[in-house]
Amino acid sequence: MRKKRLIAPGPTPVPPESLLAMARPAFHHRTSAFKQMFREINDGLEYAFQTDNPVLTFASSGTGAMEGAVVNTLSSGDTVLVVRGGKFGERWAELCQSYGVRVVPIDVEWGEAVRPERIAEELRKNGGIRAVLATLCETSTAVLTDIATIGGIVRETEALLIVDAISGLCADDLRTDEWGVDVAVAGSQKGLMTPPGLAFVALSDRARNAMTRSTLPKYYFSFGKALESLEKIDTPFTPAVPLLVGLSRSLSMLREETLERVLGRHARLARAARVGIESMGLELFSKSPANTVTALKVPEGVDGVRLLGTIEEDFGVTLAGGQEQLKGKIIRIAHLGYCDDFDLLSALASVEMALKKLGYPVEVGAGVAAAEHVLLEDPTVAS
Amino acid sequence: MRKKRLIAPGPTPVPPESLLAMARPAFHHRTSAFKQMFREINDGLEYAFQTDNPVLTFASSGTGAMEGAVVNTLSSGDTVLVVRGGKFGERWAELCQSYGVRVVPIDVEWGEAVRPERIAEELRKNGGIRAVLATLCETSTAVLTDIATIGGIVRETEALLIVDAISGLCADDLRTDEWGVDVAVAGSQKGLMTPPGLAFVALSDRARNAMTRSTLPKYYFSFGKALESLEKIDTPFTPAVPLLVGLSRSLSMLREETLERVLGRHARLARAARVGIESMGLELFSKSPANTVTALKVPEGVDGVRLLGTIEEDFGVTLAGGQEQLKGKIIRIAHLGYCDDFDLLSALASVEMALKKLGYPVEVGAGVAAAEHVLLEDPTVAS
Repeated sequence: MRKKRLIAPGPTPVPPESLLAMARPAFHHRTSAFKQMFREINDGLEYAFQTDNPVLTFASSGTGAMEGAVVNTLSSGDTVLVVRGGKFGERWAELCQSYGVRVVPIDVEWGEAVRPERIAEELRKNGGIRAVLATLCETSTAVLTDIATIGGIVRETEALLIVDAISGLCADDLRTDEWGVDVAVAGSQKGLMTPPGLAFVALSDRARNAMTRSTLPKYYFSFGKALESLEKIDTPFTPAVPLLVGLSRSLSMLREETLERVLGRHARLARAARVGIESMGLELFSKSPANTVTALKVPEGVDGVRLLGTIEEDFGVTLAGGQEQLKGKIIRIAHLGYCDDFDLLSALASVEMALKKLGYPVEVGAGVAAAEHVLLEDPTVAS
Repeated sequence: MRKKRLIAPGPTPVPPESLLAMARPAFHHRTSAFKQMFREINDGLEYAFQTDNPVLTFASSGTGAMEGAVVNTLSSGDTVLVVRGGKFGERWAELCQSYGVRVVPIDVEWGEAVRPERIAEELRKNGGIRAVLATLCETSTAVLTDIATIGGIVRETEALLIVDAISGLCADDLRTDEWGVDVAVAGSQKGLMTPPGLAFVALSDRARNAMTRSTLPKYYFSFGKALESLEKIDTPFTPAVPLLVGLSRSLSMLREETLERVLGRHARLARAARVGIESMGLELFSKSPANTVTALKVPEGVDGVRLLGTIEEDFGVTLAGGQEQLKGKIIRIAHLGYCDDFDLLSALASVEMALKKLGYPVEVGAGVAAAEHVLLEDPTVAS
């Protein structure tokens, strides 16, 4: 008997209430029932994005909406700044380059956050930057970017601020309107507690103005078409109805808990994760740790791929390893979405036990004990 | 957001595979599809009971089948020995008395197991005892009864051995045929990993002979009717089809894991539970601990009802308290059915954290750490 426990930074576990809702018989999307549900979803998404602007929904993975952000606001030959400090920053650059958008990369060592002043410098140095593309939580490195400060810098220019908030939304604070984020992208399978298959885009007035200038080709990911449909509480193409049914239920849960408490819960679990890892005698990888996911450095002498495999195969716990140059070097524990104290404690226990099993001299129980202490210290947002 | 965790000695969590199977549209029970499924269920139940004899299925709670055991094998005025060392031993006595069966109680202090010699003595002392009624795992006290030895004693007499194995089946070993158990009763909502609503009875040849003498009134719980139907792979009354669908799936999982490994898994978790509790500085209640459930004594100065409430309300973990005279005095942690390492660690963490929260000077993390060590020592049956 093996119970599977999904404690990776997406897809995340889906609440049983949402799974149950999704199991209902199919219904058609050109009905008043759908319109009613979609209206509530749109309200819920605006709440989650902390925006008064429209939020578009696509049947796609998050990357589809990232592509949409590029092709709807930019044109071939435009120049943009891209913060590249991990796999998802690199994705922004690849997307832009695929469409002939010139990328001025701001390369950041993996594990570190961009200093917002570097963005200010590059904006000054390069004339006519059309957009700054950044990542709220760089999932590959567990690094949080200071979008608030970057927003303050970018709004002094003509450039748009385009943010990949796919893993971070509802885990790390994103005040889309207040911070001046023009395009914010998210996905269903992270903090929104829904299976993968939906992507979302919040668009500021400035972004909608920029759309009128954009000459890049688009069809499925046309924000113009999607905005037109949205006014009629509709979608331009067939929506993924059961995923929306699940999302609708999960958004209700989110609103019931309140975003403030949801963010507080993630912050609390992230603190406990960090203290737990350090109490095992391990090092944190991220120097600007996110509340979405925590990365630990695989200790000297341990094969990180084997460690991850042991955690999965011997303990049934799915954590995430490192990607690209970090493969085998880090382990990432998510505390994201439908996740509580005992999920985190289980993740920490699985790391301790697997390390011990592989012969590493870890004090089994030390990480869990330290995390329990942190969780007890802040009982007000106990899950 | 509160995730609920059910770690009580029944009802126990149902595997998602079984829940999913149960959600399928209803089908009729007078069909070949039902017959096919019911045949497999009967094979699976014989496997679980370790018997070559028929196992009857009733749409009822376990108590219904206990009543059936009494009314089908005994008559008014018969004398029986009943082991009374907890709430469920008392239930045997109450059932017998309700039907005019004379009870010779063998009272055992709660928390202790009956010494089999006491049964031998009572059988010698009282002539013409028709049956000995005992409990495999006395859920109320977490005590395991030595059915193997008792079986050896009872089979030397004319008496039947009737065993309530409701909570114990598939967690504590019950070799129904080998140990000479004539009537063994179980329920769906424990080690069989199915929701409540089904009860089972395994019947030896001796039990079936005794049925011919029994004059107590019965209809719904008539074992004769049920045996007749069973020969035609049928039930006398409408079966609870979705529960049987779930049971069918759970029995398949049980057979796939093998009973030997299932029992090993329960033994391993029970060992870890005991060591974990003692490492918190707490005492075990049962002097003959079962592999089904472990009871800890609520320490001096702690309100046990409040402790259980804190575990439930602040941590979302459902454990069981004490019943009757043990109310507020013990907490019972199940490691029963669809339960793995991290369920147990979560239960232990919730106890530690709740005790700390209530001001009791427990070393938070000590119990979990000790349990992790035990689980690591025996990795062969890791879940």
